[in-house]
Amino acid sequence: MSKLSTVAVVGGVHGNEMTGIHLVNHLKQTPENGQRGSFNTELVIANTKAHQHNRRYIDQDLNRQFSQADLTNPDLTDYEHSRAKALNAQLGPKHDPRVDFVIDLHTTTANMGTTLIFNTNDPLVMGMALYVQSHMPHATLFYHPQERLEDNFLTSLGRFNGFLIEVGPVPQGLLRADVYLETQTALMHCLDYIDAFNTDSLPTLPNEAVAYQFTEKVRLPEADNGDIIGMVHPSLQDADYQAIHPGDPLFMMLDGSTKPYEGKQTVYGAFINEAAYYDAHIGLSFMEKITVSLNSDH
Amino acid sequence: MSKLSTVAVVGGVHGNEMTGIHLVNHLKQTPENGQRGSFNTELVIANTKAHQHNRRYIDQDLNRQFSQADLTNPDLTDYEHSRAKALNAQLGPKHDPRVDFVIDLHTTTANMGTTLIFNTNDPLVMGMALYVQSHMPHATLFYHPQERLEDNFLTSLGRFNGFLIEVGPVPQGLLRADVYLETQTALMHCLDYIDAFNTDSLPTLPNEAVAYQFTEKVRLPEADNGDIIGMVHPSLQDADYQAIHPGDPLFMMLDGSTKPYEGKQTVYGAFINEAAYYDAHIGLSFMEKITVSLNSDH
Repeated sequence: MSKLSTVAVVGGVHGNEMTGIHLVNHLKQTPENGQRGSFNTELVIANTKAHQHNRRYIDQDLNRQFSQADLTNPDLTDYEHSRAKALNAQLGPKHDPRVDFVIDLHTTTANMGTTLIFNTNDPLVMGMALYVQSHMPHATLFYHPQERLEDNFLTSLGRFNGFLIEVGPVPQGLLRADVYLETQTALMHCLDYIDAFNTDSLPTLPNEAVAYQFTEKVRLPEADNGDIIGMVHPSLQDADYQAIHPGDPLFMMLDGSTKPYEGKQTVYGAFINEAAYYDAHIGLSFMEKITVSLNSDH
Repeated sequence: MSKLSTVAVVGGVHGNEMTGIHLVNHLKQTPENGQRGSFNTELVIANTKAHQHNRRYIDQDLNRQFSQADLTNPDLTDYEHSRAKALNAQLGPKHDPRVDFVIDLHTTTANMGTTLIFNTNDPLVMGMALYVQSHMPHATLFYHPQERLEDNFLTSLGRFNGFLIEVGPVPQGLLRADVYLETQTALMHCLDYIDAFNTDSLPTLPNEAVAYQFTEKVRLPEADNGDIIGMVHPSLQDADYQAIHPGDPLFMMLDGSTKPYEGKQTVYGAFINEAAYYDAHIGLSFMEKITVSLNSDH
Protein backbone atom coordinates (compact mmCIF):
# COMPACT_ATOMS: atom_id res chain seq x y z
CA MET A 1 0.00 0.00 0.00
CA SER A 2 1.38 3.40 -0.89
CA LYS A 3 2.49 5.71 1.89
CA LEU A 4 0.55 8.75 3.05
CA SER A 5 2.15 12.08 2.26
CA THR A 6 -0.53 14.57 3.34
CA VAL A 7 -2.94 14.40 6.29
CA ALA A 8 -5.52 17.10 7.06
CA VAL A 9 -6.52 17.69 10.69
CA VAL A 10 -9.81 19.57 10.75
CA GLY A 11 -11.60 21.41 13.55
CA GLY A 12 -14.72 23.50 13.58
CA VAL A 13 -16.84 21.58 11.07
CA HIS A 14 -19.46 22.50 13.67
CA GLY A 15 -18.90 26.08 14.71
CA ASN A 16 -19.90 25.68 18.36
CA GLU A 17 -17.65 22.68 19.06
CA MET A 18 -14.77 24.65 20.53
CA THR A 19 -12.41 21.80 21.31
CA GLY A 20 -11.29 21.02 17.76
CA ILE A 21 -11.06 24.69 16.89
CA HIS A 22 -8.81 25.56 19.82
CA LEU A 23 -6.74 22.40 19.32
CA VAL A 24 -6.17 23.13 15.61
CA ASN A 25 -5.33 26.74 16.40
CA HIS A 26 -2.90 25.61 19.10
CA LEU A 27 -1.23 23.21 16.62
CA LYS A 28 -0.84 26.08 14.16
CA GLN A 29 1.11 27.95 16.82
CA THR A 30 3.14 24.91 17.90
CA PRO A 31 3.72 23.01 14.63
CA GLU A 32 6.20 20.63 16.27
CA ASN A 33 3.20 18.95 17.95
CA GLY A 34 1.28 18.26 14.75
CA GLN A 35 4.03 17.37 12.30
CA ARG A 36 5.58 13.92 11.91
CA GLY A 37 8.69 12.97 9.97
CA SER A 38 7.07 10.93 7.22
CA PHE A 39 4.17 13.14 6.11
CA ASN A 40 2.87 16.69 6.09
CA THR A 41 0.02 17.74 8.42
CA GLU A 42 -2.34 20.43 7.15
CA LEU A 43 -4.47 22.26 9.73
CA VAL A 44 -7.95 23.43 8.74
CA ILE A 45 -10.81 25.30 10.44
CA ALA A 46 -13.81 24.23 8.41
CA ASN A 47 -16.76 26.49 9.27
CA THR A 48 -15.32 29.82 10.28
CA LYS A 49 -18.54 31.80 9.87
CA ALA A 50 -20.57 29.44 12.07
CA HIS A 51 -17.78 29.64 14.65
CA GLN A 52 -17.94 33.44 14.63
CA HIS A 53 -21.65 33.12 15.41
CA ASN A 54 -21.07 30.33 17.96
CA ARG A 55 -23.50 28.14 16.06
CA ARG A 56 -23.31 24.62 14.70
CA TYR A 57 -23.99 25.93 11.21
CA ILE A 58 -25.35 28.93 9.34
CA ASP A 59 -27.72 27.29 6.82
CA GLN A 60 -27.31 23.55 7.30
CA ASP A 61 -25.03 20.98 8.88
CA LEU A 62 -21.70 21.16 7.04
CA ASN A 63 -20.92 17.55 7.90
CA ARG A 64 -23.70 16.26 5.63
CA GLN A 65 -22.59 18.09 2.44
CA PHE A 66 -19.71 15.98 1.12
CA SER A 67 -21.34 13.35 -1.10
CA GLN A 68 -19.92 13.43 -4.60
CA ALA A 69 -23.42 14.11 -5.93
CA ASP A 70 -23.88 17.20 -3.73
CA LEU A 71 -20.35 18.48 -4.27
CA THR A 72 -20.96 18.50 -8.02
CA ASN A 73 -24.51 19.91 -7.85
CA PRO A 74 -24.34 23.59 -8.89
CA ASP A 75 -27.82 24.27 -7.51
CA LEU A 76 -26.62 23.87 -3.90
CA THR A 77 -25.50 27.40 -3.06
CA ASP A 78 -26.08 28.01 0.66
CA TYR A 79 -23.19 28.83 2.98
CA GLU A 80 -22.37 25.26 3.99
CA HIS A 81 -22.92 24.01 0.42
CA SER A 82 -20.32 26.53 -0.64
CA ARG A 83 -17.95 25.74 2.23
CA ALA A 84 -18.13 22.05 1.29
CA LYS A 85 -17.20 22.85 -2.30
CA ALA A 86 -14.40 25.13 -1.16
CA LEU A 87 -13.04 22.40 1.14
CA ASN A 88 -13.37 19.91 -1.72
CA ALA A 89 -11.23 22.21 -3.85
CA GLN A 90 -8.78 22.70 -0.98
CA LEU A 91 -8.39 19.07 0.11
CA GLY A 92 -9.89 16.97 -2.69
CA PRO A 93 -11.27 16.86 -5.28
CA LYS A 94 -13.13 13.89 -3.93
CA HIS A 95 -12.87 11.74 -7.07
CA ASP A 96 -9.05 12.10 -7.05
CA PRO A 97 -7.97 13.71 -3.80
CA ARG A 98 -4.75 15.56 -3.15
CA VAL A 99 -4.99 14.82 0.59
CA ASP A 100 -4.52 11.21 1.63
CA PHE A 101 -6.37 11.25 4.92
CA VAL A 102 -8.69 13.54 6.90
CA ILE A 103 -8.92 13.46 10.70
CA ASP A 104 -11.94 15.43 11.89
CA LEU A 105 -12.32 16.62 15.51
CA HIS A 106 -15.79 16.74 17.06
CA THR A 107 -17.46 16.93 20.45
CA THR A 108 -20.84 15.78 21.72
CA THR A 109 -23.06 16.73 24.63
CA ALA A 110 -23.71 13.00 25.11
CA ASN A 111 -21.74 10.90 27.58
CA MET A 112 -19.88 9.05 24.82
CA GLY A 113 -16.39 9.42 26.26
CA THR A 114 -13.75 9.12 23.56
CA THR A 115 -15.41 7.65 20.48
CA LEU A 116 -13.50 6.76 17.31
CA ILE A 117 -15.78 6.90 14.28
CA PHE A 118 -14.78 5.30 11.00
CA ASN A 119 -16.88 4.55 7.95
CA THR A 120 -14.78 1.90 6.18
CA ASN A 121 -13.22 -1.45 6.97
CA ASP A 122 -10.08 -0.53 5.07
CA PRO A 123 -7.24 -2.03 7.17
CA LEU A 124 -5.40 1.28 7.33
CA VAL A 125 -8.42 3.04 8.83
CA MET A 126 -9.64 0.26 11.09
CA GLY A 127 -6.05 -0.26 12.15
CA MET A 128 -5.95 3.37 13.29
CA ALA A 129 -8.95 2.72 15.53
CA LEU A 130 -7.33 -0.39 17.00
CA TYR A 131 -4.04 1.45 17.47
CA VAL A 132 -5.63 4.38 19.29
CA GLN A 133 -7.67 1.99 21.43
CA SER A 134 -4.51 0.05 22.33
CA HIS A 135 -3.24 3.30 23.90
CA MET A 136 -6.66 4.46 25.20
CA PRO A 137 -8.50 1.27 26.22
CA HIS A 138 -11.54 3.26 27.34
CA ALA A 139 -12.12 4.53 23.80
CA THR A 140 -15.13 3.15 21.92
CA LEU A 141 -15.13 2.09 18.26
CA PHE A 142 -18.11 3.42 16.27
CA TYR A 143 -18.47 1.83 12.84
CA HIS A 144 -20.76 3.36 10.23
CA PRO A 145 -19.90 1.79 6.85
CA GLN A 146 -20.37 4.10 3.89
CA GLU A 147 -19.18 4.00 0.30
CA ARG A 148 -16.65 6.83 0.12
CA LEU A 149 -18.09 8.74 -2.85
CA GLU A 150 -21.61 8.52 -1.40
CA ASP A 151 -20.48 9.34 2.15
CA ASN A 152 -21.52 12.88 3.10
CA PHE A 153 -19.00 13.32 5.95
CA LEU A 154 -15.98 15.59 5.56
CA THR A 155 -13.76 12.62 6.43
CA SER A 156 -14.68 11.08 3.07
CA LEU A 157 -12.82 13.79 1.13
CA GLY A 158 -9.38 12.12 1.34
CA ARG A 159 -7.92 9.20 -0.61
CA PHE A 160 -8.89 6.96 2.29
CA ASN A 161 -12.25 7.35 4.02
CA GLY A 162 -10.89 9.00 7.15
CA PHE A 163 -11.36 9.18 10.86
CA LEU A 164 -13.53 11.18 13.23
CA ILE A 165 -12.65 11.73 16.90
CA GLU A 166 -15.83 12.45 18.91
CA VAL A 167 -15.42 13.29 22.62
CA GLY A 168 -17.99 14.13 25.27
CA PRO A 169 -19.81 15.10 27.29
CA VAL A 170 -19.19 18.80 26.84
CA PRO A 171 -21.80 21.52 26.30
CA GLN A 172 -21.68 23.41 23.05
CA GLY A 173 -19.80 26.67 23.04
CA LEU A 174 -17.05 26.06 25.58
CA LEU A 175 -13.86 24.17 26.39
CA ARG A 176 -13.65 21.51 29.07
CA ALA A 177 -10.05 20.67 29.90
CA ASP A 178 -10.72 16.93 30.23
CA VAL A 179 -12.38 16.77 26.81
CA TYR A 180 -9.64 18.91 25.25
CA LEU A 181 -6.91 16.68 26.63
CA GLU A 182 -8.66 13.47 25.52
CA THR A 183 -9.07 14.85 22.00
CA GLN A 184 -5.45 15.96 21.87
CA THR A 185 -4.22 12.57 23.09
CA ALA A 186 -6.33 10.64 20.58
CA LEU A 187 -5.17 12.89 17.75
CA MET A 188 -1.50 12.46 18.66
CA HIS A 189 -1.98 8.67 18.55
CA CYS A 190 -3.60 8.96 15.10
CA LEU A 191 -0.64 10.93 13.78
CA ASP A 192 1.82 8.52 15.41
CA TYR A 193 -0.03 5.64 13.78
CA ILE A 194 0.27 7.11 10.30
CA ASP A 195 3.94 7.79 10.92
CA ALA A 196 4.43 4.19 12.02
CA PHE A 197 2.51 2.96 8.97
CA ASN A 198 4.67 5.07 6.66
CA THR A 199 7.91 3.85 8.26
CA ASP A 200 6.89 0.19 8.44
CA SER A 201 7.14 0.26 12.22
CA LEU A 202 3.55 -0.57 13.20
CA PRO A 203 3.21 -2.62 16.35
CA THR A 204 1.16 -5.80 16.30
CA LEU A 205 -2.49 -4.88 16.73
CA PRO A 206 -5.32 -7.05 18.03
CA ASN A 207 -7.06 -8.78 15.16
CA GLU A 208 -10.54 -8.15 16.54
CA ALA A 209 -12.34 -5.63 18.69
CA VAL A 210 -15.81 -4.83 19.91
CA ALA A 211 -17.45 -1.98 18.03
CA TYR A 212 -20.89 -0.41 17.76
CA GLN A 213 -22.55 -0.08 14.38
CA PHE A 214 -25.16 2.60 13.80
CA THR A 215 -28.61 1.22 12.97
CA GLU A 216 -31.18 4.01 13.37
CA LYS A 217 -32.07 7.37 14.88
CA VAL A 218 -34.86 7.38 17.45
CA ARG A 219 -37.29 10.29 17.72
CA LEU A 220 -38.33 11.92 20.97
CA PRO A 221 -42.03 11.50 21.88
CA GLU A 222 -44.15 14.04 20.04
CA ALA A 223 -47.74 15.22 20.31
CA ASP A 224 -49.99 15.20 17.27
CA ASN A 225 -49.02 18.82 16.62
CA GLY A 226 -45.32 17.89 16.61
CA ASP A 227 -44.43 19.30 20.05
CA ILE A 228 -41.90 17.37 22.10
CA ILE A 229 -43.74 15.78 25.03
CA GLY A 230 -41.05 13.57 26.53
CA MET A 231 -37.40 13.36 27.49
CA VAL A 232 -34.71 10.72 27.54
CA HIS A 233 -35.51 8.65 30.62
CA PRO A 234 -33.28 9.35 33.64
CA SER A 235 -32.09 5.73 33.63
CA LEU A 236 -30.94 6.08 30.00
CA GLN A 237 -29.41 9.57 30.32
CA ASP A 238 -25.57 9.35 30.18
CA ALA A 239 -25.81 5.58 29.57
CA ASP A 240 -24.27 5.60 26.09
CA TYR A 241 -23.09 2.18 24.86
CA GLN A 242 -25.01 0.34 27.57
CA ALA A 243 -27.55 -2.32 26.63
CA ILE A 244 -31.19 -1.37 26.14
CA HIS A 245 -33.33 -4.49 26.54
CA PRO A 246 -36.93 -4.89 25.35
CA GLY A 247 -39.15 -3.18 27.92
CA ASP A 248 -36.42 -0.95 29.36
CA PRO A 249 -37.41 2.70 29.95
CA LEU A 250 -36.63 4.86 26.93
CA PHE A 251 -38.42 8.15 27.58
CA MET A 252 -40.03 9.95 30.47
CA MET A 253 -43.09 11.86 29.34
CA LEU A 254 -43.64 15.41 30.65
CA ASP A 255 -46.58 14.02 32.63
CA GLY A 256 -44.18 11.68 34.43
CA SER A 257 -45.16 8.44 32.73
CA THR A 258 -42.61 6.11 31.12
CA LYS A 259 -42.37 5.04 27.49
CA PRO A 260 -40.43 1.78 27.19
CA TYR A 261 -38.35 0.39 24.38
CA GLU A 262 -40.74 -1.74 22.37
CA GLY A 263 -38.28 -3.51 20.05
CA LYS A 264 -37.55 -7.22 20.28
CA GLN A 265 -33.74 -7.07 20.06
CA THR A 266 -31.31 -5.71 22.62
CA VAL A 267 -29.77 -2.51 21.29
CA TYR A 268 -27.20 -0.01 22.52
CA GLY A 269 -27.62 3.75 22.71
CA ALA A 270 -25.28 6.46 21.42
CA PHE A 271 -25.63 10.20 21.01
CA ILE A 272 -28.10 9.97 23.88
CA ASN A 273 -29.62 13.45 24.33
CA GLU A 274 -27.21 15.11 21.91
CA ALA A 275 -28.13 18.81 21.87
CA ALA A 276 -27.35 19.19 18.17
CA TYR A 277 -30.07 16.70 17.25
CA TYR A 278 -32.73 18.19 19.50
CA ASP A 279 -34.13 20.54 16.87
CA ALA A 280 -34.76 17.48 14.69
CA HIS A 281 -36.43 15.80 17.71
CA ILE A 282 -33.85 12.99 17.72
CA GLY A 283 -33.39 11.56 21.21
CA LEU A 284 -30.67 8.99 20.57
CA SER A 285 -29.20 6.54 18.08
CA PHE A 286 -29.63 2.81 18.31
CA MET A 287 -26.46 0.82 17.74
CA GLU A 288 -25.71 -2.85 17.20
CA LYS A 289 -22.82 -4.36 19.13
CA ILE A 290 -20.51 -6.10 16.67
CA THR A 291 -17.02 -7.46 16.34
CA VAL A 292 -14.79 -5.82 13.78
CA SER A 293 -11.77 -7.56 12.39
CA LEU A 294 -8.73 -6.27 10.55
CA ASN A 295 -8.94 -9.21 8.17
CA SER A 296 -12.66 -9.61 7.48
CA ASP A 297 -14.92 -8.07 4.92
CA HIS A 298 -17.21 -6.93 7.68
CA MET B 1 -47.84 42.34 55.13
CA SER B 2 -50.44 42.25 52.39
CA LYS B 3 -51.16 38.96 50.67
CA LEU B 4 -50.00 38.09 47.17
CA SER B 5 -52.74 37.85 44.59
CA THR B 6 -50.79 37.34 41.34
CA VAL B 7 -47.60 35.37 40.73
CA ALA B 8 -45.91 35.10 37.34
CA VAL B 9 -43.95 31.94 36.51
CA VAL B 10 -41.63 32.68 33.61
CA GLY B 11 -39.65 30.36 31.33
CA GLY B 12 -37.53 31.04 28.28
CA VAL B 13 -35.95 34.34 29.29
CA HIS B 14 -33.03 32.61 27.60
CA GLY B 15 -34.30 30.96 24.45
CA ASN B 16 -32.01 27.91 24.55
CA GLU B 17 -32.80 26.97 28.16
CA MET B 18 -35.45 24.39 27.34
CA THR B 19 -36.36 23.30 30.87
CA GLY B 20 -38.33 26.36 31.89
CA ILE B 21 -40.00 26.60 28.50
CA HIS B 22 -41.25 23.02 28.55
CA LEU B 23 -42.24 23.27 32.20
CA VAL B 24 -44.27 26.45 31.64
CA ASN B 25 -45.89 24.94 28.56
CA HIS B 26 -46.73 21.80 30.53
CA LEU B 27 -48.30 23.91 33.30
CA LYS B 28 -50.41 25.69 30.69
CA GLN B 29 -51.80 22.31 29.67
CA THR B 30 -52.25 21.09 33.26
CA PRO B 31 -53.29 24.23 35.16
CA GLU B 32 -54.15 22.23 38.28
CA ASN B 33 -50.39 21.85 38.86
CA GLY B 34 -49.57 25.56 38.76
CA GLN B 35 -52.58 27.10 40.49
CA ARG B 36 -53.00 27.45 44.27
CA GLY B 37 -56.10 28.41 46.18
CA SER B 38 -54.99 31.79 47.47
CA PHE B 39 -53.51 33.46 44.38
CA ASN B 40 -53.50 33.39 40.60
CA THR B 41 -50.53 31.97 38.68
CA GLU B 42 -49.74 33.52 35.30
CA LEU B 43 -47.55 31.54 32.91
CA VAL B 44 -45.19 33.41 30.59
CA ILE B 45 -42.67 32.47 27.89
CA ALA B 46 -40.40 35.49 27.80
CA ASN B 47 -38.21 35.31 24.69
CA THR B 48 -40.20 33.44 22.08
CA LYS B 49 -38.12 34.57 19.12
CA ALA B 50 -34.82 33.48 20.67
CA HIS B 51 -36.43 30.15 21.49
CA GLN B 52 -37.52 29.70 17.88
CA HIS B 53 -33.88 30.20 16.90
CA ASN B 54 -32.61 28.01 19.77
CA ARG B 55 -30.41 30.87 20.93
CA ARG B 56 -29.93 32.56 24.28
CA TYR B 57 -30.98 35.86 22.75
CA ILE B 58 -31.38 37.65 19.42
CA ASP B 59 -29.65 41.00 20.07
CA GLN B 60 -28.67 40.94 23.74
CA ASP B 61 -29.29 39.09 26.97
CA LEU B 62 -32.93 39.72 27.92
CA ASN B 63 -32.18 39.18 31.59
CA ARG B 64 -30.10 42.37 31.78
CA GLN B 65 -32.77 44.74 30.39
CA PHE B 66 -35.10 45.35 33.34
CA SER B 67 -33.60 48.31 35.18
CA GLN B 68 -36.10 51.13 35.53
CA ALA B 69 -33.69 53.40 33.64
CA ASP B 70 -33.52 51.07 30.64
CA LEU B 71 -37.22 50.26 30.65
CA THR B 72 -37.99 53.97 30.32
CA ASN B 73 -35.24 54.74 27.77
CA PRO B 74 -36.94 55.14 24.36
CA ASP B 75 -33.59 54.85 22.54
CA LEU B 76 -33.27 51.16 23.42
CA THR B 77 -35.09 49.53 20.52
CA ASP B 78 -33.47 46.13 19.83
CA TYR B 79 -35.47 42.93 20.12
CA GLU B 80 -34.71 42.21 23.77
CA HIS B 81 -35.07 45.90 24.68
CA SER B 82 -38.53 45.71 23.20
CA ARG B 83 -39.38 42.38 24.81
CA ALA B 84 -38.37 43.83 28.20
CA LYS B 85 -40.69 46.80 27.67
CA ALA B 86 -43.49 44.51 26.55
CA LEU B 87 -43.03 42.31 29.63
CA ASN B 88 -42.94 45.44 31.78
CA ALA B 89 -46.29 46.43 30.31
CA GLN B 90 -47.62 42.90 30.77
CA LEU B 91 -46.42 42.25 34.35
CA GLY B 92 -45.41 45.66 35.73
CA PRO B 93 -45.08 48.54 35.29
CA LYS B 94 -42.01 48.28 37.47
CA HIS B 95 -42.65 51.44 39.50
CA ASP B 96 -46.13 50.17 40.47
CA PRO B 97 -46.46 46.55 39.41
CA ARG B 98 -49.66 44.65 38.81
CA VAL B 99 -47.90 41.33 39.51
CA ASP B 100 -46.79 40.69 43.07
CA PHE B 101 -44.05 38.19 42.48
CA VAL B 102 -42.03 36.77 39.57
CA ILE B 103 -40.47 33.29 39.64
CA ASP B 104 -38.02 32.87 36.78
CA LEU B 105 -36.80 29.43 35.61
CA HIS B 106 -33.25 29.07 34.33
CA THR B 107 -30.65 26.40 33.64
CA THR B 108 -26.88 26.45 33.57
CA THR B 109 -24.19 24.32 31.97
CA ALA B 110 -22.27 24.60 35.26
CA ASN B 111 -22.48 21.93 37.95
CA MET B 112 -24.50 24.18 40.28
CA GLY B 113 -27.18 21.67 41.18
CA THR B 114 -30.36 23.39 42.32
CA THR B 115 -29.50 27.01 43.06
CA LEU B 116 -32.00 29.49 44.48
CA ILE B 117 -31.09 33.05 43.49
CA PHE B 118 -32.61 36.03 45.28
CA ASN B 119 -31.58 39.67 45.19
CA THR B 120 -33.21 41.02 48.36
CA ASN B 121 -33.24 40.25 52.05
CA ASP B 122 -36.97 40.89 52.24
CA PRO B 123 -38.26 38.23 54.67
CA LEU B 124 -40.89 37.03 52.21
CA VAL B 125 -38.25 36.35 49.55
CA MET B 126 -35.49 35.02 51.77
CA GLY B 127 -38.13 32.93 53.53
CA MET B 128 -38.97 31.33 50.19
CA ALA B 129 -35.33 30.28 49.81
CA LEU B 130 -35.27 28.82 53.31
CA TYR B 131 -38.60 27.08 52.75
CA VAL B 132 -37.48 25.46 49.49
CA GLN B 133 -34.18 24.44 51.07
CA SER B 134 -36.04 22.86 53.99
CA HIS B 135 -37.63 20.52 51.43
CA MET B 136 -34.56 20.25 49.20
CA PRO B 137 -31.56 20.33 51.56
CA HIS B 138 -29.11 19.95 48.66
CA ALA B 139 -30.24 23.29 47.19
CA THR B 140 -27.82 26.20 47.41
CA LEU B 141 -28.75 29.79 48.32
CA PHE B 142 -27.24 32.42 46.01
CA TYR B 143 -27.62 35.97 47.29
CA HIS B 144 -26.98 38.93 45.02
CA PRO B 145 -28.41 42.05 46.70
CA GLN B 146 -29.79 44.66 44.31
CA GLU B 147 -32.04 47.64 44.73
CA ARG B 148 -35.24 46.60 42.95
CA LEU B 149 -35.61 49.56 40.59
CA GLU B 150 -31.93 49.37 39.61
CA ASP B 151 -31.95 45.57 39.32
CA ASN B 152 -31.82 44.50 35.65
CA PHE B 153 -33.20 40.98 36.17
CA LEU B 154 -36.72 40.06 35.10
CA THR B 155 -37.42 38.95 38.66
CA SER B 156 -37.31 42.61 39.72
CA LEU B 157 -40.49 43.44 37.78
CA GLY B 158 -42.89 42.39 40.54
CA ARG B 159 -43.95 44.17 43.73
CA PHE B 160 -41.37 42.07 45.58
CA ASN B 161 -37.94 41.48 44.08
CA GLY B 162 -38.56 37.88 43.08
CA PHE B 163 -36.92 34.53 42.82
CA LEU B 164 -34.80 32.71 40.24
CA ILE B 165 -34.46 28.93 40.10
CA GLU B 166 -31.20 27.94 38.37
CA VAL B 167 -30.54 24.22 37.81
CA GLY B 168 -27.62 22.43 36.17
CA PRO B 169 -25.63 20.99 34.69
CA VAL B 170 -27.50 20.71 31.43
CA PRO B 171 -26.25 21.67 27.97
CA GLN B 172 -28.09 24.42 26.16
CA GLY B 173 -30.79 23.37 23.77
CA LEU B 174 -32.14 20.20 25.35
CA LEU B 175 -34.06 18.69 28.24
CA ARG B 176 -32.47 16.48 30.87
CA ALA B 177 -35.09 14.67 32.92
CA ASP B 178 -33.19 15.08 36.20
CA VAL B 179 -32.88 18.84 35.70
CA TYR B 180 -36.50 19.13 34.60
CA LEU B 181 -37.72 17.26 37.69
CA GLU B 182 -35.54 19.31 40.05
CA THR B 183 -36.85 22.54 38.55
CA GLN B 184 -40.43 21.36 38.75
CA THR B 185 -40.02 20.30 42.39
CA ALA B 186 -38.42 23.59 43.42
CA LEU B 187 -41.15 25.56 41.64
CA MET B 188 -43.92 23.59 43.33
CA HIS B 189 -42.34 24.39 46.72
CA CYS B 190 -42.21 28.08 45.81
CA LEU B 191 -45.90 28.11 44.96
CA ASP B 192 -46.74 26.14 48.11
CA TYR B 193 -44.76 28.66 50.14
CA ILE B 194 -46.70 31.62 48.78
CA ASP B 195 -49.95 29.77 49.43
CA ALA B 196 -48.85 29.07 53.01
CA PHE B 197 -47.84 32.71 53.43
CA ASN B 198 -51.21 33.89 52.14
CA THR B 199 -53.10 31.53 54.42
CA ASP B 200 -50.99 32.20 57.52
CA SER B 201 -49.89 28.59 57.62
CA LEU B 202 -46.15 28.93 57.17
CA PRO B 203 -44.09 26.38 59.06
CA THR B 204 -41.28 27.52 61.32
CA LEU B 205 -38.20 28.16 59.21
CA PRO B 206 -34.57 28.15 60.28
CA ASN B 207 -33.48 31.63 61.26
CA GLU B 208 -30.15 31.36 59.48
CA ALA B 209 -28.61 29.57 56.54
CA VAL B 210 -25.37 29.42 54.61
CA ALA B 211 -25.49 31.31 51.33
CA TYR B 212 -23.07 32.45 48.66
CA GLN B 213 -22.87 36.09 47.69
CA PHE B 214 -21.63 37.10 44.26
CA THR B 215 -18.45 39.19 44.34
CA GLU B 216 -16.90 39.23 40.84
CA LYS B 217 -16.67 37.63 37.42
CA VAL B 218 -13.32 36.12 36.48
CA ARG B 219 -12.01 36.23 32.93
CA LEU B 220 -10.49 33.28 31.10
CA PRO B 221 -6.78 33.67 30.23
CA GLU B 222 -6.35 35.73 27.07
CA ALA B 223 -3.47 36.44 24.71
CA ASP B 224 -2.55 40.02 23.89
CA ASN B 225 -4.79 39.81 20.83
CA GLY B 226 -7.74 38.77 22.99
CA ASP B 227 -7.79 35.07 22.03
CA ILE B 228 -8.69 32.61 24.77
CA ILE B 229 -5.53 30.66 25.67
CA GLY B 230 -6.67 28.72 28.74
CA MET B 231 -9.50 26.69 30.20
CA VAL B 232 -11.01 26.14 33.61
CA HIS B 233 -8.57 23.81 35.36
CA PRO B 234 -9.70 20.17 35.54
CA SER B 235 -9.60 20.31 39.34
CA LEU B 236 -11.98 23.29 39.33
CA GLN B 237 -14.35 22.00 36.61
CA ASP B 238 -17.68 20.93 38.14
CA ALA B 239 -16.50 22.11 41.59
CA ASP B 240 -19.09 24.88 42.03
CA TYR B 241 -19.47 26.14 45.62
CA GLN B 242 -16.23 24.48 46.73
CA ALA B 243 -13.47 26.55 48.33
CA ILE B 244 -10.74 28.04 46.14
CA HIS B 245 -7.74 28.79 48.33
CA PRO B 246 -4.85 31.09 47.43
CA GLY B 247 -2.52 29.15 45.13
CA ASP B 248 -5.15 26.63 44.00
CA PRO B 249 -5.23 25.89 40.25
CA LEU B 250 -7.65 28.16 38.43
CA PHE B 251 -6.91 27.66 34.74
CA MET B 252 -5.04 25.20 32.55
CA MET B 253 -3.37 26.97 29.66
CA LEU B 254 -3.55 25.44 26.18
CA ASP B 255 0.18 24.70 26.51
CA GLY B 256 -0.56 22.55 29.57
CA SER B 257 0.75 24.93 32.24
CA THR B 258 -1.32 25.96 35.26
CA LYS B 259 -2.46 29.44 36.28
CA PRO B 260 -3.23 29.56 40.00
CA TYR B 261 -5.61 31.74 41.97
CA GLU B 262 -3.52 34.67 43.09
CA GLY B 263 -5.93 36.30 45.56
CA LYS B 264 -5.32 36.36 49.29
CA GLN B 265 -8.81 35.35 50.47
CA THR B 266 -10.49 31.98 50.11
CA VAL B 267 -13.33 32.28 47.61
CA TYR B 268 -15.96 29.96 46.18
CA GLY B 269 -16.72 29.37 42.51
CA ALA B 270 -20.09 29.46 40.77
CA PHE B 271 -21.13 29.43 37.11
CA ILE B 272 -17.86 27.57 36.53
CA ASN B 273 -17.48 27.14 32.76
CA GLU B 274 -20.98 28.42 32.00
CA ALA B 275 -21.36 28.23 28.21
CA ALA B 276 -23.46 31.39 28.05
CA TYR B 277 -20.59 33.47 29.42
CA TYR B 278 -17.95 32.00 27.13
CA ASP B 279 -18.36 34.60 24.38
CA ALA B 280 -17.61 37.27 27.00
CA HIS B 281 -14.54 35.20 28.05
CA ILE B 282 -15.91 34.77 31.59
CA GLY B 283 -14.63 31.56 33.16
CA LEU B 284 -16.45 31.64 36.51
CA SER B 285 -17.84 33.84 39.26
CA PHE B 286 -16.17 34.29 42.60
CA MET B 287 -18.54 34.08 45.57
CA GLU B 288 -18.22 34.86 49.25
CA LYS B 289 -19.61 32.33 51.71
CA ILE B 290 -21.95 34.13 54.09
CA THR B 291 -24.71 33.51 56.57
CA VAL B 292 -28.10 34.96 55.76
CA SER B 293 -30.71 35.54 58.43
CA LEU B 294 -34.41 36.12 58.24
CA ASN B 295 -34.13 38.83 60.87
CA SER B 296 -30.98 40.71 59.97
CA ASP B 297 -30.37 43.61 57.65
CA HIS B 298 -27.73 41.59 55.89
